[in-house]
Amino acid sequence: MRTPLFENTAVNAACGARILIKPEMLQHTGSFKFRGASNRVALMSTTERAGGIVAWSSGNHALAISAVAARHGIKATILMPSDAPRAKVEGAERLGGTVRLYDRATEVREEIGADIAARTRAVIIPPYDDPQVIAGQGTVGLELAEQAAALGASLDMALLACSGGGLVAGAATALKARSPATQVYSVEPAGFDDTARSLASGRPERNAPGAATLCDALMVPTPGLLTFPINRALLAGGVAVSDDEVKAAMRLVYDTLKLVVEPGGVTPLAAVLAGKVDARGKTVGVVLSGGNVDPGTYAACIGA
Amino acid sequence: MRTPLFENTAVNAACGARILIKPEMLQHTGSFKFRGASNRVALMSTTERAGGIVAWSSGNHALAISAVAARHGIKATILMPSDAPRAKVEGAERLGGTVRLYDRATEVREEIGADIAARTRAVIIPPYDDPQVIAGQGTVGLELAEQAAALGASLDMALLACSGGGLVAGAATALKARSPATQVYSVEPAGFDDTARSLASGRPERNAPGAATLCDALMVPTPGLLTFPINRALLAGGVAVSDDEVKAAMRLVYDTLKLVVEPGGVTPLAAVLAGKVDARGKTVGVVLSGGNVDPGTYAACIGA
Repeated sequence: MRTPLFENTAVNAACGARILIKPEMLQHTGSFKFRGASNRVALMSTTERAGGIVAWSSGNHALAISAVAARHGIKATILMPSDAPRAKVEGAERLGGTVRLYDRATEVREEIGADIAARTRAVIIPPYDDPQVIAGQGTVGLELAEQAAALGASLDMALLACSGGGLVAGAATALKARSPATQVYSVEPAGFDDTARSLASGRPERNAPGAATLCDALMVPTPGLLTFPINRALLAGGVAVSDDEVKAAMRLVYDTLKLVVEPGGVTPLAAVLAGKVDARGKTVGVVLSGGNVDPGTYAACIGA
Repeated sequence: MRTPLFENTAVNAACGARILIKPEMLQHTGSFKFRGASNRVALMSTTERAGGIVAWSSGNHALAISAVAARHGIKATILMPSDAPRAKVEGAERLGGTVRLYDRATEVREEIGADIAARTRAVIIPPYDDPQVIAGQGTVGLELAEQAAALGASLDMALLACSGGGLVAGAATALKARSPATQVYSVEPAGFDDTARSLASGRPERNAPGAATLCDALMVPTPGLLTFPINRALLAGGVAVSDDEVKAAMRLVYDTLKLVVEPGGVTPLAAVLAGKVDARGKTVGVVLSGGNVDPGTYAACIGA
């Protein structure tokens, strides 16, 4: 689905900038992940389809793979952390995925996934380290460039949430082709700013263990093997936001845009509001990347 | 703002119909009311503008008039019931409106408004009984017809929330011109189904006093003087929904569409879900008319 691009007077005023919002929570399964999953699954051969899919995900990729696999009549096994939001686990099951929970602290999802793939001949569709997944997510950047141009706007910068880096790598690739002057930034939660630090140092950095964040979707330990070289080549930099900054942005989105955004999905707007990038007076593309959040968490974040 | 029109697999499945959603909470000031306010204010003469505007509203018209008046540099006095949601009262003030609260039980807002207009030479812009306000709201129907046609869809029916009836009267006028086969229904809260009963009896009926509803935006006592003759001529009928049906629809919109919808704004979808119209297998336009709701109310409605 081509999501719209729009702006809001109150958001512009709060940011002191022209903010062009791309609401990816309106995408099928409530996040941009449907794009990468659709692209990758569409390219599977008949033989591959018979073996099914195995994927791992904190939630949004799980929902996307479950939905796309069901559309194509393909069996999907999804590895999800045992602390994933209920909305995401139950959603993946409702969409037809077979969910297997793992312990984030003691198990390595890539190993479990590889084992299942070896036993069942399933195709592994990782959440970000896959060229066709990255290309699919990149359509967010392509649409952003096209829709901004259609509005007569010249994007000074674009901000995208970053976990493994697939969204920002794909979007930056498209933006650099269609809107070369646009500076693209990754936004991560504080404590999980591995991409920001890796971009600064020039080599993959790891997050210290034990950090916590509201942004359940953005908790990978280190940048992706495929995504980091792309991001290192194309991004202007990376920034990080605190849980309080995330909550303030979720409340603003609730009050003014009437969109349900999840903590990880609002990080780019949180970064602008908190002055983490120099956006004042500029035209800024902000991707709100998802809206899958448990009602209790959401209510607490918007101050209910 | 031209709001999008889209459908969602999960909503279609829940309704057993093809539901084309028009999300008017994405409109400026969070409801369709911006359309009527913009149209009416744009037609004010320079002399009229100097005298300012007086308007009355349970909330969404207040927000719309406040924002439009501020854009044009016109003073606006808004009469709002003392039990209006805080989000709406504070929002109108933040947008520059001067709010004067009245008691729904003991005061008549039309009288207070007429008195202010007589003293200040302000122009009265009522929430629905005004041809240019109705015409402005009607652009919802015009866009719905155009966007459905662009999707190759033929609308069997369209459902719109109804209070004074301006939205449904305007939208039905446009739909009957552009998509004559579409059956248009008004949707009201139980206890405030004056339009449904008036359509059935052929003459304006009044609601019994003392009813309560979650739908703060849909609490007028009787159909509008201008709107009812239009609705009597054009609508297929009117239906009503309970608070529990409203809450179930709000939760579905939260879970699947990731839109913040207010109780009154979700009534058309609630009517389809509850089987109040025979929508099964049909193509149905559903306008979600607004998203201005206090966080606490919203959290309770989505089951947080």
